Amino acid sequence: MFRPLFWEEDHLVLLDQTRLPWEERWLRLARWEEVAEAIRTLRVRGAPALGIAAAYGLALAALRPKPGRTPRQEVAEAREGLRQTRPTAVNLFWALERMGRVAQSAPEEALFPALLAEARRIHEEDIAANLRMGEFGAALLPPGARVLTICNTGALATGGHGTALGILRTAWSQGKLGRVYVCETRPVLQGARLTAWELLREGIPFRLLADFAVGLLFRRGEVDAVLVGADRIAQNGDFANKLGTYVLAVLAHRHGVPFYVAAPSSSFDLSLPAGEAIPIEERPEEEVLAPYGCRFAPEGARAWNPAFDLTPGELVTAFVTERGVIRPPYARTIPAALSG
Amino acid sequence: MFRPLFWEEDHLVLLDQTRLPWEERWLRLARWEEVAEAIRTLRVRGAPALGIAAAYGLALAALRPKPGRTPRQEVAEAREGLRQTRPTAVNLFWALERMGRVAQSAPEEALFPALLAEARRIHEEDIAANLRMGEFGAALLPPGARVLTICNTGALATGGHGTALGILRTAWSQGKLGRVYVCETRPVLQGARLTAWELLREGIPFRLLADFAVGLLFRRGEVDAVLVGADRIAQNGDFANKLGTYVLAVLAHRHGVPFYVAAPSSSFDLSLPAGEAIPIEERPEEEVLAPYGCRFAPEGARAWNPAFDLTPGELVTAFVTERGVIRPPYARTIPAALSG
Repeated sequence: MFRPLFWEEDHLVLLDQTRLPWEERWLRLARWEEVAEAIRTLRVRGAPALGIAAAYGLALAALRPKPGRTPRQEVAEAREGLRQTRPTAVNLFWALERMGRVAQSAPEEALFPALLAEARRIHEEDIAANLRMGEFGAALLPPGARVLTICNTGALATGGHGTALGILRTAWSQGKLGRVYVCETRPVLQGARLTAWELLREGIPFRLLADFAVGLLFRRGEVDAVLVGADRIAQNGDFANKLGTYVLAVLAHRHGVPFYVAAPSSSFDLSLPAGEAIPIEERPEEEVLAPYGCRFAPEGARAWNPAFDLTPGELVTAFVTERGVIRPPYARTIPAALSG
Repeated sequence: MFRPLFWEEDHLVLLDQTRLPWEERWLRLARWEEVAEAIRTLRVRGAPALGIAAAYGLALAALRPKPGRTPRQEVAEAREGLRQTRPTAVNLFWALERMGRVAQSAPEEALFPALLAEARRIHEEDIAANLRMGEFGAALLPPGARVLTICNTGALATGGHGTALGILRTAWSQGKLGRVYVCETRPVLQGARLTAWELLREGIPFRLLADFAVGLLFRRGEVDAVLVGADRIAQNGDFANKLGTYVLAVLAHRHGVPFYVAAPSSSFDLSLPAGEAIPIEERPEEEVLAPYGCRFAPEGARAWNPAFDLTPGELVTAFVTERGVIRPPYARTIPAALSG
C-alpha cells in the first residue's frame, strides 16, 4: 500500500505534497521542527495525515533533544510547537494528546521507543480504519455511481488508502464506481494536483472541474452522490472541511443528492456541541493571488483566504466512520457511535 | 470614459484582455477575421462587448472586401463567420441582426459608412444604457453595501462603464458602496485579472476570493447583495451567465440575500420561453488544467469546462435594465418591460 509518510531507521520520510504533481520529492526529516514546518507549509496535509506526522514528530523530539535538554523536555516543547501549526483539523490535537499520555507513563530512558511505537500504532490504525470505511462507504453507492468530491482525501491525506477517496478506491476495486468528478479546489488545488495524481495512478476515470462548475453538474443530473472528508466534526454533525464543502452540501440538498462525509473517529470533537466554535484557519493571501508563483491578480489586489468552511449537520445524509455509518439525529447518534 | 474598444481612422482598436493584468496591449484590427479571432480567444469578452465588437467587425468587412468580392458579399460572409464564434451570449446575434438590417437597406456604395455609423450607435447606446442601469441599480443597494460579484461585468465587458460592475461604479461615486467581494472566476480568472484591475483603477475597496469561499462568506453574513451580469435571459427570467452564477443564486436564496442581475435589453432573448434552450459553450480543457501556461494538473488528466451555467428566474430578486427594474412574475413583466 502506498504511504505518503513512514518511519525509516531514525528519520521520518515524507512525500513533499507542495511539489506534486510536478515532482515526487521525498524528504527525510530528522527534527520535530522540520515536521512543524512541513505541516505549516502543506508539505503534508489532510486531517488524518497531520495527526500521524505530528505523532512521528514527537518521536523525533524524544530521539534528538537539543543540547541541555532531556528527551522529556524536548517532547513537551515539541507538543506545544506542533500544536501551533494549524488550528482546524482536530486529528492533530487528538494525536498530540494520545502521544502525551504515552510520554507521561513511559520512563525517560524508554521515551523514544515508546513514542515511536505509539506513532506507528496511530499510523497502522488509521490505515485499518480507512479500509473499513472503504467497505462501509462503498456499500452506500449505487452501481456505476458518479461521485463528486473535493480536495484530496486519498492516501496522501492519511496514513494510506484515504477516507472519502479511500471509499472511491474500494468502490472501484469492487467494480461499482462509474466516474469521479473532482473539484480542482482552489486556492491550493489539492483536487487538480493531488487527487488527479492519485486517480491517474489507480486508473479510475475522472474529470477535473473548475470549482464553480458544480452548479451546472448538479443541474444536469450528473451527480449520484457527494463524498467528502472532514477536518473536525462537532457532536451535532456540524463539521469543518475544505473551503467549498458547504457549497457542495447546499447544492446536494437542493438537488436531492445524498451527501456523505467520511472520517475516522479521530476527526470527531465531542467537546464541541456545535460547529460554530471550530476555529477556521485563514492562510496567506498569496495562495489566492499568485498560486505556485503564477500571479493572476494585479499588484495591489487583496484577497480573503479562509482554508475551510463549516457545514451544518442537517445537510449531511450520513457519516462514514471505521465504526460504521452514522445517521441523524446526530446529537444522539454521534456520541453513541463513538462511546466505548 | 474608459472604453475597451473603439474605432480609430480605419481600424478597430481593442485592448487585448488575455494580456491583462500583466500588460496593456492594444490591438489594431483591420479585418473582420481578426475580430472573430479576438472573440474566440477571449481578447474581447463580455456579452455587450461581443455585440459591439461584432458590429465593428461588419464595418471592417464592408471597408475591406477580399479580392473578387463586393462589400455586401464580404459583409454576408462576415456575419456568418462572426455568428460562429461563441454561442451563449445573445448580444452577439442581436448586434449581427441589427447590423444586417442596416446592410440590407443601405446602397452598396454607402455600405461602409452606414455600417460604421450603426456600430457606433450600438456602442454609444450601450454606454448610455449602462449609465442608466447604474442609477437604477445603485438605488437598490443599502448604504455601505457589501456586494458580491463574479466574472467581469465592467467597462471591459461592455462599451464602457459596465453592467453589474457599472452599478458598483455608480454606487461608489454616490458614496453608497462599502466593499466588493470578487470571485476570482475560474477557469479564465476574469475576476482576479479584469475586475480587480478595474476596481484598483477606481480605488474601490475589494477582496478577491477563491470561488468556493463564497459559502463561508454568506454564512458569516458578509454579503448584503449579489450583483451579476447575464449572457442571455429567457422570457421567464431563466438566464445564462458565467459558470458559478447559479451557485451564487442558490446561496443567496438560502441566506435571504437579494440577488440582482444587471443587463441591457440586448441581453434578453424573448424567442426563448425558458432557459433550458440556451446553448452552453464548452471550452478547451486546458483552461482548467493549465491556466495561462501554469500547469497544475498532472499530464493525462481530463477536465470538463463549460463556460456558463443556467440560473432559474425564481432565484432572481430583480433584473436591472436601462428601462428600469423588472420584478417577478417575469414571464409577464419581462415581455412587458421590453416591448416598445
